[in-house]
Amino acid sequence: MNYAEELGIKAKAAKGAIAAAAPNLKNAALKAIAEALIKNAAEIIKTNAVDIENGKNNGMSAALQDRLLLNEQRIKGMADSVEQLIKLDDPVGFVEQGGLRPNGLKIQKTRVPLGVIGIIYESRPNVTVDAAALCLKAGNAVILRGGKEAFNSNKCLADIMRGAVKSAGLPADIIQLVGDTSRETAKDLMRLDKYLDLLVPRGGAGLINTVLRESTVPVIETGVGNCHIFVDETADISKAVSIAHNAKTSRPSVCNAAESLLVHEKIAEEFLPKIKEAFKSHNVEIRGCEKTAKILGADVVPATGEDYATEFLDFIMSVKVVSDVGGAIAHIGKYGTNHSECIVTNNLANAEKFTREVDAAAVYVNASTRFTDGEEFGYGAEIGISTGKLHARGPMGLKELTTVKYIVNGNGQVR
Amino acid sequence: MNYAEELGIKAKAAKGAIAAAAPNLKNAALKAIAEALIKNAAEIIKTNAVDIENGKNNGMSAALQDRLLLNEQRIKGMADSVEQLIKLDDPVGFVEQGGLRPNGLKIQKTRVPLGVIGIIYESRPNVTVDAAALCLKAGNAVILRGGKEAFNSNKCLADIMRGAVKSAGLPADIIQLVGDTSRETAKDLMRLDKYLDLLVPRGGAGLINTVLRESTVPVIETGVGNCHIFVDETADISKAVSIAHNAKTSRPSVCNAAESLLVHEKIAEEFLPKIKEAFKSHNVEIRGCEKTAKILGADVVPATGEDYATEFLDFIMSVKVVSDVGGAIAHIGKYGTNHSECIVTNNLANAEKFTREVDAAAVYVNASTRFTDGEEFGYGAEIGISTGKLHARGPMGLKELTTVKYIVNGNGQVR
Repeated sequence: MNYAEELGIKAKAAKGAIAAAAPNLKNAALKAIAEALIKNAAEIIKTNAVDIENGKNNGMSAALQDRLLLNEQRIKGMADSVEQLIKLDDPVGFVEQGGLRPNGLKIQKTRVPLGVIGIIYESRPNVTVDAAALCLKAGNAVILRGGKEAFNSNKCLADIMRGAVKSAGLPADIIQLVGDTSRETAKDLMRLDKYLDLLVPRGGAGLINTVLRESTVPVIETGVGNCHIFVDETADISKAVSIAHNAKTSRPSVCNAAESLLVHEKIAEEFLPKIKEAFKSHNVEIRGCEKTAKILGADVVPATGEDYATEFLDFIMSVKVVSDVGGAIAHIGKYGTNHSECIVTNNLANAEKFTREVDAAAVYVNASTRFTDGEEFGYGAEIGISTGKLHARGPMGLKELTTVKYIVNGNGQVR
Repeated sequence: MNYAEELGIKAKAAKGAIAAAAPNLKNAALKAIAEALIKNAAEIIKTNAVDIENGKNNGMSAALQDRLLLNEQRIKGMADSVEQLIKLDDPVGFVEQGGLRPNGLKIQKTRVPLGVIGIIYESRPNVTVDAAALCLKAGNAVILRGGKEAFNSNKCLADIMRGAVKSAGLPADIIQLVGDTSRETAKDLMRLDKYLDLLVPRGGAGLINTVLRESTVPVIETGVGNCHIFVDETADISKAVSIAHNAKTSRPSVCNAAESLLVHEKIAEEFLPKIKEAFKSHNVEIRGCEKTAKILGADVVPATGEDYATEFLDFIMSVKVVSDVGGAIAHIGKYGTNHSECIVTNNLANAEKFTREVDAAAVYVNASTRFTDGEEFGYGAEIGISTGKLHARGPMGLKELTTVKYIVNGNGQVR
């Protein structure tokens, strides 16, 4: 038996208790977690400092150090997020559909927890808390495997949460952190189909592709967003500038930020200088096609095919002039990642063609792609944005962490 | 480029037309298929005779020959099934959820086709027609890979359907049959994640496990049912006999038939002789534990662990005397396949414990497992019974052959 299997066996032993827990009990556990995070803030910060120090010594970039850093404000933020979950409706037990069949059978399609969920993620310690709390609220046990740079922080957070759920009367093993950060154990986790009902990778394209390739556990892809803004011939120019600027610059590090701008050739000469001007606010680098360069001049970096395929997550935007909506759709079909895509237009037929033919979780007409988000869609917290088509598409909230069971009551019916 | 990729490219080129087809057009294509099957019945029967002859020469069992056989009545049955689909609601375009967000964004979570679906199945030519028609109704292109023993029949049926959809104004390539029956091509199909959105294996445990292991395309497991009937201490004996008899004998070859009988030790002496008597109607072989043998006598075949794990699909039933509902749940947890499980009881607490703790697509109280079926559940046709937990669980109908897309309309909203 390998180490991952040991974790699987412990999760299996614990999952019944959390699956059967009443909403009040689960909410008490969430409350206990939030309080324990605040109470142990000093210890968390002290432990996190070890990871930060190791990172510095290993030449970690400033951006990654920032992602890794925990301070009082961020710990308060994590605790607040956990408390927010208490207010959300419990998905478990909801009857999706129910009624009597002609023969008197009473059929109820009822939401039940998935069972045990694995989360593999990079070095963001907040994911440790977010993911564990979401899985708990949806009635699942969770096995967390975070990035090695955040190991000490994750271990500290997981221990605090385990103590909190135990104090609330639930088994500590409903939350487990993988205790080593070896690739071997990560791979064993991806093969744990006997114990895991779902594996969710959270991170960049490299991590997600590895998990997709290696996993025998069902996987839901999340979070890679090479999102496009297409400015159509009839677009309102000021709205187009505002949407493209917002989608690129408001938070470039997230998956719903836009990476690529497609512009109808008949509006390019008017639109491109205006967006170039707007992008100066954040020194956005433009990597453009020849036509873009012809209009905007020498400071356009020539775009390669790789640029069009890249999720920059930075103040960089690829730009291409296209002949029409069909050209935009074809480009998105080639380079898009099925996340969020936008058309800015006043042409109804083009809006409908775009929303019908673009294959993505969310397709926008005249609004920023930045809205693809659980909170913005009204679902509360999310565990990620699914770019796959099965089980969950778009923001994955509590409901997507459950499945259904048909409960059928009869009085002797046979067929 | 391998042959499977060629099929993928053709499906990709055709999928837009079927995805965008109005319900009337899809229904006209279904009508054309049904009519073409009837019109070409003689050719189908003639071609099927070749497969049957080959099967006989290769020593195919009588049961398999019967599964393979097509006659006028069965062709009429297939055509009727296709016509039935016309009456069902079109799943595409249905708005699952929709409304205005506080900022004025209009969000519509809309059902859309999955895209391209692969079906890998054994030598039942009726699946060729059923699966193609269901995929068509749900707006998908389909790539079919049937068992080699039915190849000529499948090819004939696929050609007839392709002609029919073309005559209705849709591309023939929305229905493609894999033109060879090599294992290599089947494996290539399982790796076709670039073109296939879903792969559904239909057949026995061997086929399903191969597909689960080999496929990089998302898979939904269907159809393996090692279903149990647990007769609790307080069961109404006559209902228990009726339910167990029906679940075992009414159609033993299907996945919702019961394979195993669990009996509370305090009711075993009264119940077991009665079910033994009832089973005489179909000469059901009983493979029982020691306690069963002690009660029923020498004609009980001693049950092995393998018997408890086996989906017999025949007039054979494994029997085990258990100490209580907890023992029954533990046995089902060990040997069950998450399909359909039944408790016969008058004890409310036991009924609730069983429905809560047994992990299966359908859990019955006092009714036969044979009801787990799309028609019986009121969904119309189904492509299979999902025993997985993601995307679909239980009968998989038209809705499960679609996904959702968020269509978001704004007037310049930014975040």
